[in-house]
Amino acid sequence: MITSELKSFIDIHKEEVDKSLTRCIETVECPSKLKDAMFYSIDAGGKRIRPLLMLAAINAYRDINDRDYDAVCAVEMVHTYSLIHDDLPAMDDDDYRRGRLTNHKVYGEAFAVLSGDALLTQAFETLSRLPEVKDFDKIRLIQEFAKDSGAQGMVGGQAADLEGEGKDLSLKELEYIHYHKTGALLKFSVVAGGILGEAPDDDIQQLRMFAQELGLVFQIKDDILDVEGNEAEMGKATGADQDKNKSTYPRLLTLDGAKEKLVYHAERAKSALQTTSASSALLEDFVDYVMERLS
Amino acid sequence: MITSELKSFIDIHKEEVDKSLTRCIETVECPSKLKDAMFYSIDAGGKRIRPLLMLAAINAYRDINDRDYDAVCAVEMVHTYSLIHDDLPAMDDDDYRRGRLTNHKVYGEAFAVLSGDALLTQAFETLSRLPEVKDFDKIRLIQEFAKDSGAQGMVGGQAADLEGEGKDLSLKELEYIHYHKTGALLKFSVVAGGILGEAPDDDIQQLRMFAQELGLVFQIKDDILDVEGNEAEMGKATGADQDKNKSTYPRLLTLDGAKEKLVYHAERAKSALQTTSASSALLEDFVDYVMERLS
Repeated sequence: MITSELKSFIDIHKEEVDKSLTRCIETVECPSKLKDAMFYSIDAGGKRIRPLLMLAAINAYRDINDRDYDAVCAVEMVHTYSLIHDDLPAMDDDDYRRGRLTNHKVYGEAFAVLSGDALLTQAFETLSRLPEVKDFDKIRLIQEFAKDSGAQGMVGGQAADLEGEGKDLSLKELEYIHYHKTGALLKFSVVAGGILGEAPDDDIQQLRMFAQELGLVFQIKDDILDVEGNEAEMGKATGADQDKNKSTYPRLLTLDGAKEKLVYHAERAKSALQTTSASSALLEDFVDYVMERLS
Repeated sequence: MITSELKSFIDIHKEEVDKSLTRCIETVECPSKLKDAMFYSIDAGGKRIRPLLMLAAINAYRDINDRDYDAVCAVEMVHTYSLIHDDLPAMDDDDYRRGRLTNHKVYGEAFAVLSGDALLTQAFETLSRLPEVKDFDKIRLIQEFAKDSGAQGMVGGQAADLEGEGKDLSLKELEYIHYHKTGALLKFSVVAGGILGEAPDDDIQQLRMFAQELGLVFQIKDDILDVEGNEAEMGKATGADQDKNKSTYPRLLTLDGAKEKLVYHAERAKSALQTTSASSALLEDFVDYVMERLS
């Protein structure tokens, strides 16, 4: 279950993340319908796992300060844009997301495409303007971010996922998809936290491994929840992957096999932190939180 | 007409731009269908006006070198992504672009969305990795680029354009659209050339004014070509704006009025260069080239 330390960390910082996200969108000068469409999806809530993970990684090296919230907004903006585009009729064709109508159901497809494009671009602007971060570190962040969110990362994973629909995938192919589609942005969140926390280079490497394992934990749990989850808690229909005949961990490994694999990767994630100089208790708690979540 | 100096400049550099663009896409590691879709639209040709304009702005301050081509690829990648998304059925619903089938007609809508997303993201990665450019200047480039291509620039202009469809726009509203939709990326091209050429700050400001006027020249000429152009040379259907009952300069000002306005902004563009320290002959030739082009 979630530890009281992590619960209190999330309670404190999630509210600040939400406020910062609102501010990031409010200050954009653009046609009102575009801004409304951007804000609609940013404001749709969600667990803010990526921002909180980035803050937890910073916190492993130093105290969090007000200026850190801008950086975490960038990763949530890219996550949100990817959901808007994924939900489009030409992609996953979803009408609901987090219990609310999807962006294109409210603003139409054209504005869903544009608001996604705008959020992606805004994320890079936000990183390029981070206050009190050295130019050298801004460039490192932007390089990692572009790689992890583009064709070599998240977008590539989404493309592979579309290509794999209706096919029987091997475990290796499934892991390629998840490592890119979901894992890359989680990895960025952790690595960016390390960079902002001025972690030593060796630690950054270990944080990368930690995040890679955590990404698998996240995805395996997602697949398990699709089989076992409660629709009310998930805010979307469960069993969707089964209906679409998608390759999933439970399908490839059985449900028990998937649960074993979940525990295996959670342990590997935690052990990657052992050789770092980080105060890593919160990051370890995060692994349990992702592994044991109910939605 | 085009001067022999500009013609020879374009002949030399367009080929290098095309080669660099191919290299930029070839080195991306991603699923093959995604890469094919990105390459298809990048390879669809076009005049490469933005890259050539950036090179001409660099050339106003120093000789061009091999490393400059990466920077110019970024702007063409963003221009290309915007065309792919604009052509989608939910947006302008175009089947042909530059005389070839549009991206979604060949690769399907989902891959058209994703290849656009990937090109946009790749552009930022390219700028963040520019060889031998100081981190400080990379950050300036990325800030300008994000602002000019996102909600406050190109994407905002596209949103305003969609909102204005079927309405009678004022000249002011029409200029808002074009200043953002087309003008912002042209402005970035010129300003980025100034930054890479290490132009003084006062010059950057004048280059911005030059580019803003040039953007209007570009758009007014586009509208005139839609009335007067030859379909074979344009590579797309002419008269499309009239069919869609779109607000255009000839519609608001008559064809003769639009032509007068074209000359007026061309002169203002050239005069903005007079107070700079630039060797600006090529940039002036560029104004005539844009104003007198046949497609």
